[in-house]
Amino acid sequence: MVDINFFPPEKDDIVNAAHRIAPYIRRTPVLTCDDINERYNTELFFKCENFQQAGSFKSRGACNNLLQLTPEERQRGVCTHSSGNHAAALARAAKLFGTKAFIVMPQNSEKVKIEAVRNYGGKIFFCEPILEAREAALQQIQQQTGAIEIHPYNNLRTITGQATACKELIEQCDDNLDLIIAPVGGGGLLSGTALSARYFGNNIRVIAGEPEGADDAAQSFYSGKLIPVRQPNTIADGLRTSLGSYTFPIIANYVYDIYPVSEEAIVAAMKRIFDKMKIVVEPSAAVALAVVMENVSKFIGKKTGIILSGGNIEVRRMAEILGG
Amino acid sequence: MVDINFFPPEKDDIVNAAHRIAPYIRRTPVLTCDDINERYNTELFFKCENFQQAGSFKSRGACNNLLQLTPEERQRGVCTHSSGNHAAALARAAKLFGTKAFIVMPQNSEKVKIEAVRNYGGKIFFCEPILEAREAALQQIQQQTGAIEIHPYNNLRTITGQATACKELIEQCDDNLDLIIAPVGGGGLLSGTALSARYFGNNIRVIAGEPEGADDAAQSFYSGKLIPVRQPNTIADGLRTSLGSYTFPIIANYVYDIYPVSEEAIVAAMKRIFDKMKIVVEPSAAVALAVVMENVSKFIGKKTGIILSGGNIEVRRMAEILGG
Repeated sequence: MVDINFFPPEKDDIVNAAHRIAPYIRRTPVLTCDDINERYNTELFFKCENFQQAGSFKSRGACNNLLQLTPEERQRGVCTHSSGNHAAALARAAKLFGTKAFIVMPQNSEKVKIEAVRNYGGKIFFCEPILEAREAALQQIQQQTGAIEIHPYNNLRTITGQATACKELIEQCDDNLDLIIAPVGGGGLLSGTALSARYFGNNIRVIAGEPEGADDAAQSFYSGKLIPVRQPNTIADGLRTSLGSYTFPIIANYVYDIYPVSEEAIVAAMKRIFDKMKIVVEPSAAVALAVVMENVSKFIGKKTGIILSGGNIEVRRMAEILGG
Repeated sequence: MVDINFFPPEKDDIVNAAHRIAPYIRRTPVLTCDDINERYNTELFFKCENFQQAGSFKSRGACNNLLQLTPEERQRGVCTHSSGNHAAALARAAKLFGTKAFIVMPQNSEKVKIEAVRNYGGKIFFCEPILEAREAALQQIQQQTGAIEIHPYNNLRTITGQATACKELIEQCDDNLDLIIAPVGGGGLLSGTALSARYFGNNIRVIAGEPEGADDAAQSFYSGKLIPVRQPNTIADGLRTSLGSYTFPIIANYVYDIYPVSEEAIVAAMKRIFDKMKIVVEPSAAVALAVVMENVSKFIGKKTGIILSGGNIEVRRMAEILGG
């Protein structure tokens, strides 16, 4: 049993966040695919956050944070360290709401994600791709600029914002889902999903998908202790981070189970989504479908929401991954 | 002035076709993209027939045809020549309605389209990629099997089926469009679109997009005479065919204008759709957006429906095209 020694977002917080961010994000569509449903004898409902502003669900948390800054905070600017999607979402939100974004990015971030941050006018600082270097660089920026840190996941306003995706999904499926699967990296999306399923759904079980090569969430979940990831090894570049002090307790209490998925299954899921659904998802977003593909029997006859978290990938990189 | 010496599909025919095929096709979503709208100072509504069954609008015409076969005709099977999407749609429909599909395909058809026909159980006969060879092979099959020819575009039931896409688009946009752009190859989609815009829309102008390297429709449109395409040269593999005796008169009378687009614009439109909308379209489907990109001033402040005709393309081929 993991204790929650803080006040997690309540139902009203998520409802308020949904209203707050509505003008600045998209109510993304929910798509279905007969080919995939027939193949696995199941019913899947894909929440297309790959169509979200700035290409991922991260725009929800970023907007929810920036809309609650005081004028004085807005004056100082915002900062974060992120390998990509949160960085782009924060840079976009900063531009939208008239503040500055200072972003620490690991040198090995995907090129398309670096360009997205630049295009939104974010100021980038590169660092070594390890957590210590990211944190040190961020601290330096904060000291120099006084910018407010907006954490990519271990922040209650971030979690509350991400929770709005699941709220929409449940509404769009007329609260008719048995299960919802979300990918887990730092756990912002997953913890928000678990809260929304609890508040807005009727007995919906939330399952996480996690790459085998970065299975800190599963280890933490089963041991009841927050275990950081060491040397993550996965193409799912958005899922290489560890759970945080806010996300872990929420996940430990409200998520039903965490399934590891192989790299092969992630690639196969990306390919199936491209070929059969004709939509573009990044590797991290394919993880939820990979869970179904590797555990078919568990989903037979069930109605399952699948959160496609983002679509920021270049076509060349995609061809490399799918061609291999 | 081009005379129409046959009875074109009427409003009721299209309404009936929509009901007839509804259980077997998808009411595909209409997506919008803020990035693209802001860039061109316009409002575009993308009708996603790339999400259609068998990956293109061709499933509409194929189902509309096969559902009207007599039991005796169904017994004999159906045949066609097609470079791909109609072939796959016909093979799928044949399987669905318990008949056989014999398909003549040019040797240079896209591999993914050949595989789709095979997967649906269609029997393929390859031929030289010229119209004479296609027609000769088809005639031979008809003689051997007695199969009914289902023409990919020059067939009133095909046209009526394709017309249902535009009917849906108008409904989904609450009849609030100024313009609709469709690509033109043989003209099945375009003539159906023109009819539906007339019957179901309020003063909607229908514009066609056509690759410069296969501009027979524009030549026919402006000269008032059906001019077949010679040596088409375009990556838009679905648009290398000529107009037919049914499609040309409908287009000549009811289409507002035909815009040629460069190969560069087709590639740029595909890339923009991939990067900004996160969806997969084949080159032929990108032609309608290419029209906007090459004629920006004509669409400023307008509401325009864009028919994305299909999404059958391999990721490797896409990377080749977009990487070049």
